[in-house]
Amino acid sequence: MAGYNLEAIEAAPFKDDLDIVIPTIRSLDFLEQWRPFLKPYHLIIVQDGDPSIKIRIPDGYDYELYNRNDINRILGPRASCISFKDGGCRCFGFMVSKKKYIYTIDDDCFVAKDPSGKEINVIAQHIKNLETPSTPYYFNTLYDPFRDGTDFVRGYPFSLREGVPTAISHGLWLNIPDYDAPTQLVKPRERNTRYVDAVMTIPKGVLYPMCGMNLAFNRELIGPAMYFSLMGEGQPISRYDDMWAGWATKVVCDHLGFGVKTGLPYLWHSKASNPFVNLKKEHSGIHWQEEMIPFFKYLRFSKESDTAAKCYMELSKMTKETLGKVDPYFVKLADAMVAWIEAWEELNPSVVDDKKKCNEKDVKAK
Amino acid sequence: MAGYNLEAIEAAPFKDDLDIVIPTIRSLDFLEQWRPFLKPYHLIIVQDGDPSIKIRIPDGYDYELYNRNDINRILGPRASCISFKDGGCRCFGFMVSKKKYIYTIDDDCFVAKDPSGKEINVIAQHIKNLETPSTPYYFNTLYDPFRDGTDFVRGYPFSLREGVPTAISHGLWLNIPDYDAPTQLVKPRERNTRYVDAVMTIPKGVLYPMCGMNLAFNRELIGPAMYFSLMGEGQPISRYDDMWAGWATKVVCDHLGFGVKTGLPYLWHSKASNPFVNLKKEHSGIHWQEEMIPFFKYLRFSKESDTAAKCYMELSKMTKETLGKVDPYFVKLADAMVAWIEAWEELNPSVVDDKKKCNEKDVKAK
Repeated sequence: MAGYNLEAIEAAPFKDDLDIVIPTIRSLDFLEQWRPFLKPYHLIIVQDGDPSIKIRIPDGYDYELYNRNDINRILGPRASCISFKDGGCRCFGFMVSKKKYIYTIDDDCFVAKDPSGKEINVIAQHIKNLETPSTPYYFNTLYDPFRDGTDFVRGYPFSLREGVPTAISHGLWLNIPDYDAPTQLVKPRERNTRYVDAVMTIPKGVLYPMCGMNLAFNRELIGPAMYFSLMGEGQPISRYDDMWAGWATKVVCDHLGFGVKTGLPYLWHSKASNPFVNLKKEHSGIHWQEEMIPFFKYLRFSKESDTAAKCYMELSKMTKETLGKVDPYFVKLADAMVAWIEAWEELNPSVVDDKKKCNEKDVKAK
Repeated sequence: MAGYNLEAIEAAPFKDDLDIVIPTIRSLDFLEQWRPFLKPYHLIIVQDGDPSIKIRIPDGYDYELYNRNDINRILGPRASCISFKDGGCRCFGFMVSKKKYIYTIDDDCFVAKDPSGKEINVIAQHIKNLETPSTPYYFNTLYDPFRDGTDFVRGYPFSLREGVPTAISHGLWLNIPDYDAPTQLVKPRERNTRYVDAVMTIPKGVLYPMCGMNLAFNRELIGPAMYFSLMGEGQPISRYDDMWAGWATKVVCDHLGFGVKTGLPYLWHSKASNPFVNLKKEHSGIHWQEEMIPFFKYLRFSKESDTAAKCYMELSKMTKETLGKVDPYFVKLADAMVAWIEAWEELNPSVVDDKKKCNEKDVKAK
C-alpha cells in the first residue's frame, strides 16, 4: 500500500516508545529465548501472589518490578481494583508505563517460526499493525490492505481507504490454542499448527474474544479502557480478565473511531493450563458471557464521552445498571472500574493532552 | 470440530447436487486444465454477445449452452433483465439450474497450487465451506471453527456455537488480484502471492466486495437474491454486477439468518483485464458505490420478507425509492429486479417448498 513503507521496521523498532508488560508468579527464564527480540526494550514486571518470593530475571534486561506491596503503596485504597492471584494484575503495568505502546506477553510463551523457518519478531509485526490504519467500516477480502503486496480490492469505496488509527493489535498462538476448559477437556490433544498469514481489522460493531497472551496496544488512544477487570482471589470469576478488557476496548474503539486488528504475529504457546482448575475458575464466566456479550453488543455511548477515560466511566455506570442485575459481582466490578480510572488519571495527569489527541484522530476518522 | 467429518469430501463431491455456471464469449479451452476437478460436473454455459459465434468446448464435458437467442426465447419480455455483453449474464445460468449448489468461475482462471505444491480442488473446498455452519454473530480469532484442527476459542459464547446455515462461499485468487481500474493503473505489476490458509465468516451487518470469479452458493437458500444486476451494453455501468449481487445477498443472508464465508479456495487468475477499458466501465460505479454501500448498510427488511425472493422484491422497492434519486438507472434496475424474480419463480415453481425450508433454517438459527 502506497505511503506506508514499513520495511524499515526491523530489529528493535520504536525502542523508546514501547514497554513490555509481563505478569508472573515464577522465574522469567522464558526471556532467555526472547533475548534477540525483547532485550532492547524496557520491561515492566508485575509480580503476582506472595510478594516475598524472589522473581528470577535473566541478566541484561532493563526492568522495573512491582509486587503487591508496591501496588498497595502506589495506589492506596484504589489498589483493590488490581486483581490478586490472577494474570489480570498486568494492567497495573499499563498504568505505570509512560510509553505510547504496550506489548504484553505471558511467561509460558516462546518464539515461533514462520513457515519458512524464520523466527518471528513479534514486536516488529505488532508495530506494523499499530502504525498502519485499520479499516473497520467495510471488509477487504484480501485482508489488511496496508500490508506489502496487497491493496484494497475492486468494490472497496474510495472514501474509506484512508482508514482510521489502529489502537489494538491482537496476536495469535501456535501449538496450544487458547481454549476454554470444556474444549480443553474434550480435545486434550488438539494443537494449532496452522499458520494463517493474515492481519485483518475486526469490523465495527463486531465483538471478539481478546486474549492477553500476545497483545499490543496504543496506550495514548485506548489505555484507560484496557482494564483487566477484577478476577482471582476474592472474586467469583477468573480467566475472563482479558475478555472483559477486549469487549470494553472494542466498544470504546468503535465509538471513538479507532481500529482493532487480529492475526499476525504468532508466538509459541508452550503449555496448556490445567483444565480441571480452569473449569472451576471459568464456570461463572461461561454463564455470564451469555449476558456480557449482548450487553457490550448493544450498549451505546453518549456523544459527551469523547475520550477512552470518559467512555470507561460511562461504561462503569452501564455495568452497574445492567449487569448488576445479573449478579452483585458486577456492582463491585463497576466500582473497581471507577477506581481504575481515578488511579489512571492520577498517574497519567496529561489527560487533557490525550483528549485533544483523541479528538483530532476522531475527526480525521469520520 | 466434532460432528463435521469432511475428510470424505474428495474427488467429485456432491456431483449430482452442483452445477458449474460459466459465462463466456470465447472458447472454453481453460477447461482442459480443470479436467481432473470439474469434468464430473454438469456445466451450464451462458454465451455472451453474438449468438452466431460458435463456442469451443473441450471433449467429454457434460453441458448445456445458452446464447442470447435462447435467453430471449425462454424468458420472453423478461429477458431484458439479463445483461448483454457483460459477465453478469451468468445469473441466467443460476435461474435455469435445478441443483442445490452453484459454482461459478471465469474463463481466465486456472488451477492454483497450495504452498505444499498440491493442486487445489476448488469445489471440494467450497462444498466444505457450504456444508458446515457459519458464525456471523461473533468473531472467532482462529477463523473457521469447523475446520479440521481448530475450534471455538476461550470467550466464545456456547449459545452461538451451533452456527447458522451457510449460503455463500467466496473464494480468492492468486496471481492477478481483483483490483479496480485506478488501482490497476497505479500498480500494474502487483501480483497476489500470499496464500492465506483461512476461511472465515463475514460477520452480520458487515458488507464486503463479492467477486464472481470463484464463487459458490446454495441456490435453495439464496438463489433468488443472486441477481447479477443490469450491466454492459445499453447500461451506464459495468463491472459492478457481482458487487451488486454480493451486497444484496449479504443483507438478505443477514436478515434470514444465513452465513457468508470468504477465504479458501484459491484459484489462479491468469490475466488482468485492460485498465483503460475498465476505467470507462467503472467510473459510474466508483461514484455510485459511495451511495450504494450505505444504502445496503442501513436498509432493513420487514418481518414479512421471510424468503430470499420476498426480500428481493422488497429490495427492488427500496432501490427505486432511495437509489432512484441518485440516478434514473436505478429505477430501471429496480424494474429489472422485479422481472428477475418473476422469471425465477416461473422457472422454479417450488417456491412454497423453498419458503418452508428457509423458515425452518431461520428458526434454527435464532
